[in-house]
Amino acid sequence: MIAPFDVPRLPKLVFGAGLLARLPELVRGFGDKALLVTGSRSLTSSRRLDAILAGLKAASIEVHHASVSGEPAPAFVDATAAQFRGQGVSVVVAVGGGSAVDAGKAVSAMLAEDGSVVEYLEGVGKRKPSGSKVPFIAVPTTAGTGSEATKNAVLSRVGPDGFKRSLRHDRYVPDAALIDPELALTCPPDVSGACGVDAFTQLLEAYVCVRANPFTDSLALGAMALVRDHLLPACTGQDLKARSAMAYAAYASGVCLANAGLGVIHGLAGTIGGWYPIPHGVICAALATRAIAANIKALRACGDQGRPALTKYAGVGALLAGSDPNDLEVSTLKENPVKLDQEALRGILVSRIVE
Amino acid sequence: MIAPFDVPRLPKLVFGAGLLARLPELVRGFGDKALLVTGSRSLTSSRRLDAILAGLKAASIEVHHASVSGEPAPAFVDATAAQFRGQGVSVVVAVGGGSAVDAGKAVSAMLAEDGSVVEYLEGVGKRKPSGSKVPFIAVPTTAGTGSEATKNAVLSRVGPDGFKRSLRHDRYVPDAALIDPELALTCPPDVSGACGVDAFTQLLEAYVCVRANPFTDSLALGAMALVRDHLLPACTGQDLKARSAMAYAAYASGVCLANAGLGVIHGLAGTIGGWYPIPHGVICAALATRAIAANIKALRACGDQGRPALTKYAGVGALLAGSDPNDLEVSTLKENPVKLDQEALRGILVSRIVE
Repeated sequence: MIAPFDVPRLPKLVFGAGLLARLPELVRGFGDKALLVTGSRSLTSSRRLDAILAGLKAASIEVHHASVSGEPAPAFVDATAAQFRGQGVSVVVAVGGGSAVDAGKAVSAMLAEDGSVVEYLEGVGKRKPSGSKVPFIAVPTTAGTGSEATKNAVLSRVGPDGFKRSLRHDRYVPDAALIDPELALTCPPDVSGACGVDAFTQLLEAYVCVRANPFTDSLALGAMALVRDHLLPACTGQDLKARSAMAYAAYASGVCLANAGLGVIHGLAGTIGGWYPIPHGVICAALATRAIAANIKALRACGDQGRPALTKYAGVGALLAGSDPNDLEVSTLKENPVKLDQEALRGILVSRIVE
Repeated sequence: MIAPFDVPRLPKLVFGAGLLARLPELVRGFGDKALLVTGSRSLTSSRRLDAILAGLKAASIEVHHASVSGEPAPAFVDATAAQFRGQGVSVVVAVGGGSAVDAGKAVSAMLAEDGSVVEYLEGVGKRKPSGSKVPFIAVPTTAGTGSEATKNAVLSRVGPDGFKRSLRHDRYVPDAALIDPELALTCPPDVSGACGVDAFTQLLEAYVCVRANPFTDSLALGAMALVRDHLLPACTGQDLKARSAMAYAAYASGVCLANAGLGVIHGLAGTIGGWYPIPHGVICAALATRAIAANIKALRACGDQGRPALTKYAGVGALLAGSDPNDLEVSTLKENPVKLDQEALRGILVSRIVE
């Protein structure tokens, strides 16, 4: 029996190699004054930023530019929102990795709120966001967080009293996501790997979590199979086919986490990421096998109640091994005997994902 | 390599048994004056209409009611739009089968246009819809057309100069779809079967069509597996689990057709449905095996170009047989030798779907 579920909203998705060229047209749909939020280095060094600015100007769009360095901090969001609030910005466009997209998403929200973004962060502040915002377009250049499809922006303050917390509202799902896999071709191997593992753990956690539903399950299964086949080739160079598959998988991971939720890996990764400046995907990779083992142990202790999730874990193990997707398909459809080889699953994760 | 694709829009989805109770809250989100469009019989005879009206009134919503009998004709849409245009309707709500949902969708559009809806129908009229409309909520009571997720409303005029054509615009995707599988429990077996076959052929045609993409492929695969296991039990009575699975599968078929397209079965079914008053799903069932055989023959004549779609057909055959979903999974991921037993596929379709 399918338990009740909602799918509040998905962004308008434009996906395909070379489609960055459609950005001006997409921006134009929202107005003629854009605030562009980017990361601080890769776009500038690749000269892609110049091309983006030229394209927007050619479409008679007035562009203001803010760049964020490292993980997005509340101070950046507050300063940028203060600078542009009430200036008639018609759309915020973020081009960059998860940090730039989250920063842009938070700025688009804070342009319509007062005070500091810290006051609205889950578990940190006491105010609830209204959901009002300036329209927001996400253009990811890494295949990882899936922030282009999610309703939250993760902001960090690193240190002993640090945090890594979300600004969240259903209406913060980007109005549009423009995913051009060519943008990730220059992403270095270590960043590509960390981002890909982040996407994979998001897919896995959404797939086995208690709020999973047939919509997110279908997307998660398809995307995990793509990660299995394309993560490693995507890390090692100019493989546009692999980059394309990972870009889609990361988007799907965002849809899945926004609509089903996550699990203990991301729960811990957020806190650890607030204490130490370690890339999020690396923390996920370090936690994955032990967290999965702990979950499986706990599920086994639950008896019949634990069986559906155990069957799903077994299916993912089979999917990753590439040997018996039969279990995978069946796991979503029928109650089926659990055939989980925990060591094999860990081995696969360690060798194929975490290496 | 993933070819470029768009996902323009999905409705806000609220899915679950008993969630019809959330309709007033959903309507309230759009305003306080609703136009309710229903079919002519089943809702009234089940006394569910009284409950819906009472719920809306209790939420201080002013409700006007129009009922459509049989497949939606342009005359109904024109008359209803003329009656309520300029009256400040804040939301159109359709509760019923595909006909009522399509009628409500067309009315919500024509409240914002002038002239007759015939002037805007694809292949019939000469005007293009602007996309303006009154917000629209779809509440399907059958599991079939998936109209609750599509951007078109199919209108018919039956007879020698008849047609069955679409009013279509990206913005016509319903603002919200409220899917309560309990509403289909009273749907008679023949209607349930015809609707289910319609959903299945939509999933299959979207899966093998040239505009298929990883997003629609994942949803189509998951939903076809649900149809395989739940179509027959859903036709025969009070099986809420099966109704729930079919309700989701029908919704997914709407998402897939809206974002990937359809094929020759639906191309012919539209024309035939304009000539003869045969239920749409029955026409699809009658055409399915011969159309699939013709497609497979044509694909085989294409050499390498035909292989990806042939591999997908093989995967669906395996999925329906329940014997080798390995082919299914692999078909979406890798190029793989085609192992298609055409007779087996036809046999499965005939015995499991068209019986």
